[in-house]
Amino acid sequence: MPMIRLDTKNIASERLGKEHGIDTAREFSAWAKKLDGFVADLRKRKTDPKAMLGWIDLPENNGELAAIETYAAQLDEKFTDLIVLGIGGSSLGALTVVTALQHPYRNLQAQGQGLRVHFVDNVDPDVIKGLSEVLNPQTTLVNVISKSGTTAETMSAYLAFKQWLQDAVGEAYKKQIIATTDPEAGILRPLARREGYTTFEVPPSVGGRFSVLSAVGLLPIALAGIDLRELLRGAAAANAMIEKPIAENPIKQSALIQYLAYRRGKAISVLMPYSTRLRYLSNWYVQLWAESLGKAVNRDGSLVNEGSTPLAALGATDQHSQVQLFNEGPNNKIVTFVRVANFDNETLIPDAEPGVAQLSYLAKQSFNRLINAEQSATAHAIAAHGRPNYTIELKRLDAYNLGFLLQFFEWQTALMGELTYIDTYNQPGVELGKKYTYALMGREGYEDLRKELEEAGI
Amino acid sequence: MPMIRLDTKNIASERLGKEHGIDTAREFSAWAKKLDGFVADLRKRKTDPKAMLGWIDLPENNGELAAIETYAAQLDEKFTDLIVLGIGGSSLGALTVVTALQHPYRNLQAQGQGLRVHFVDNVDPDVIKGLSEVLNPQTTLVNVISKSGTTAETMSAYLAFKQWLQDAVGEAYKKQIIATTDPEAGILRPLARREGYTTFEVPPSVGGRFSVLSAVGLLPIALAGIDLRELLRGAAAANAMIEKPIAENPIKQSALIQYLAYRRGKAISVLMPYSTRLRYLSNWYVQLWAESLGKAVNRDGSLVNEGSTPLAALGATDQHSQVQLFNEGPNNKIVTFVRVANFDNETLIPDAEPGVAQLSYLAKQSFNRLINAEQSATAHAIAAHGRPNYTIELKRLDAYNLGFLLQFFEWQTALMGELTYIDTYNQPGVELGKKYTYALMGREGYEDLRKELEEAGI
Repeated sequence: MPMIRLDTKNIASERLGKEHGIDTAREFSAWAKKLDGFVADLRKRKTDPKAMLGWIDLPENNGELAAIETYAAQLDEKFTDLIVLGIGGSSLGALTVVTALQHPYRNLQAQGQGLRVHFVDNVDPDVIKGLSEVLNPQTTLVNVISKSGTTAETMSAYLAFKQWLQDAVGEAYKKQIIATTDPEAGILRPLARREGYTTFEVPPSVGGRFSVLSAVGLLPIALAGIDLRELLRGAAAANAMIEKPIAENPIKQSALIQYLAYRRGKAISVLMPYSTRLRYLSNWYVQLWAESLGKAVNRDGSLVNEGSTPLAALGATDQHSQVQLFNEGPNNKIVTFVRVANFDNETLIPDAEPGVAQLSYLAKQSFNRLINAEQSATAHAIAAHGRPNYTIELKRLDAYNLGFLLQFFEWQTALMGELTYIDTYNQPGVELGKKYTYALMGREGYEDLRKELEEAGI
Repeated sequence: MPMIRLDTKNIASERLGKEHGIDTAREFSAWAKKLDGFVADLRKRKTDPKAMLGWIDLPENNGELAAIETYAAQLDEKFTDLIVLGIGGSSLGALTVVTALQHPYRNLQAQGQGLRVHFVDNVDPDVIKGLSEVLNPQTTLVNVISKSGTTAETMSAYLAFKQWLQDAVGEAYKKQIIATTDPEAGILRPLARREGYTTFEVPPSVGGRFSVLSAVGLLPIALAGIDLRELLRGAAAANAMIEKPIAENPIKQSALIQYLAYRRGKAISVLMPYSTRLRYLSNWYVQLWAESLGKAVNRDGSLVNEGSTPLAALGATDQHSQVQLFNEGPNNKIVTFVRVANFDNETLIPDAEPGVAQLSYLAKQSFNRLINAEQSATAHAIAAHGRPNYTIELKRLDAYNLGFLLQFFEWQTALMGELTYIDTYNQPGVELGKKYTYALMGREGYEDLRKELEEAGI
């Protein structure tokens, strides 16, 4: 099992009092059966592809794993760079893992582990052009990721980078584009077939924000030189853990803490890893949490406008940015810390100013000790200000533990969706904006909407 | 005057109804005198150095400007890289400006405008070590920024990078370290004097989060090859604008809108620029807003726990992450969009798939049109869901307009502080965490606190 430690003393009512604290022993026991029931129900419902619960099985039964490994292994050594064209769930998972597990400055190394990876997750005209200026199309692969092939941002970037390759390498562009898309539906699959691109599947039963362990995430992660099997083995450990009773189950505990805090007015759920390498974990979590749980109606169709608001923070950096507000502002947040017990490197703070007394407490210690002291200190101080927080400690930041953590948060989100009784897997609230975009871009079939926008002065 | 356009139709009660909308004409007129009074009072109080209002004068009377320009102009051409050691206000301003105004992939270019800049704003042992591995100490400058010289994160990084330089270049390290610190107080000033470093000043009357236009921000920005005079000229335009009556004053309007929304339960203030180059503007804004406005007591000492929670978002990217929650979750947010009318490049979407009908609405258009259509569509959709939002449009993203925008947000924050009647310029809520860190690191004088922590099991 992964060496994870969940420290909940800073959410306990013994520490925070009854208004803001939780009587963990009592609540864990009171909710135990309900949570067991949710897990059993999710396990049962996952056989229905429409339930969008395919993420549960990705760690153990990953249909694409061998194909991805083969593709990565046979790759021509001339390739140096990978551009990932994807937005939201089609980029955040790989971004999180690649940033956490490659060399922290991989893109400044001439040589290193895996390809340099560049995520095009926006349609900024200056940035699209800028990337095309600095990369060499002769040695660059492009992975276009869209389930439907109709995502406007991804497909416009696809058109641009296809042209960029074609202009430079001619017909060879077909060997440099990899498409990750639905096995049957949508427009990218037939397009890729016609062009002869290498393709991988977005499983129909897996939604974008739960897709990091499908080919959506795994292909870029593999090309970045990261061990997929370790990542999946860690995620499988979370799948094993979810079966345990709450007393031995940090995932159920974490989900329940989030729920109880939310119901007591903690409208904001902060994720604050103390690790620069984990900085995009918060962005991935923000999408997972916001899009899964922010829903207008519940499963009976009643208007509820549910949704805890996720907030990304980074320790120790944001001690100098957001912690003033966390400590003294409205008591409307619950903070989840993530810390790493053992960093890859023990990096010493040298005694480079032996004459300066005020710095002597730092000299000859390590950054390792400093960053974790800051995390303990901040957690303790936030609790001293009466605000709930808890800490997830990973033994180390490697593929195994990160895979575990990703599946941990997916389960936590799924359980929170059950607890708040909403549909965790849809996203009806983004449709209107998409339609307005189509109308403003002059897409056929949206003429009436365009008229409506013109009349509104847009 | 800068070509800024404030579009407030999506916060108007005509659009949103009375509960969530604002009767802008009536409110602007009702609050006009009060806001004029705040501005007059801030102008008056700035002569008192303890009022920490020195940021107001930085655009027009910048004591360091000439010295910074001279330093940048005479710099040995061998230097390729700059490491900025600073945290919070000592890094976020320059990070915002450098990211917005250098080539978007400057650090991947062999040659380009200005030095490559690397911000060390955390104490992650793997990242500190990683940076030291990829840079060449022979051609790297280090700018250490700390008002007091006692910031644990910055000074531990200083010890590490001083040693790194010294090991590689010997005594020449003294020519490669630049210290930005208080002119008199603190420990970094005498240290720098003894070592013979080039030094610049953190003005005593300017707090970290308001320091971007002091040497704290200006030195790295200058070394990145950005025109300081244009930046300051833009900020001066905001200083001119603040004197105008509210009807002609987007800054006062924006501050008042934030205040009225906050008082009506919009606990969260989202900043969502539609420009990848502006992605760190949101982080800078988060610190400015959170640390200035999140306060336990008001100016009479009464417990108020004030503070709107700032939330960073990025368009169009976060349409696929956070917008579902914005539209359907609790109506507890106000969204400020920033858009750029004219990007530096007109980047076309080529017709690279002429046979695919579903993509034809994109082909032969531009990313410029697409990103701004997405912004208009999202703003309109959020309002259609009954949630308040407004849009700041910059004519273009250059030093002049960005300088304007930074000073705009500083004034907005200052006015919000007056409206909520708190001390905008202190940060008492971070002291306890610092002390706990000292105790855990074994700093002399914190033995009692350490005992307390040990007894609490930390």
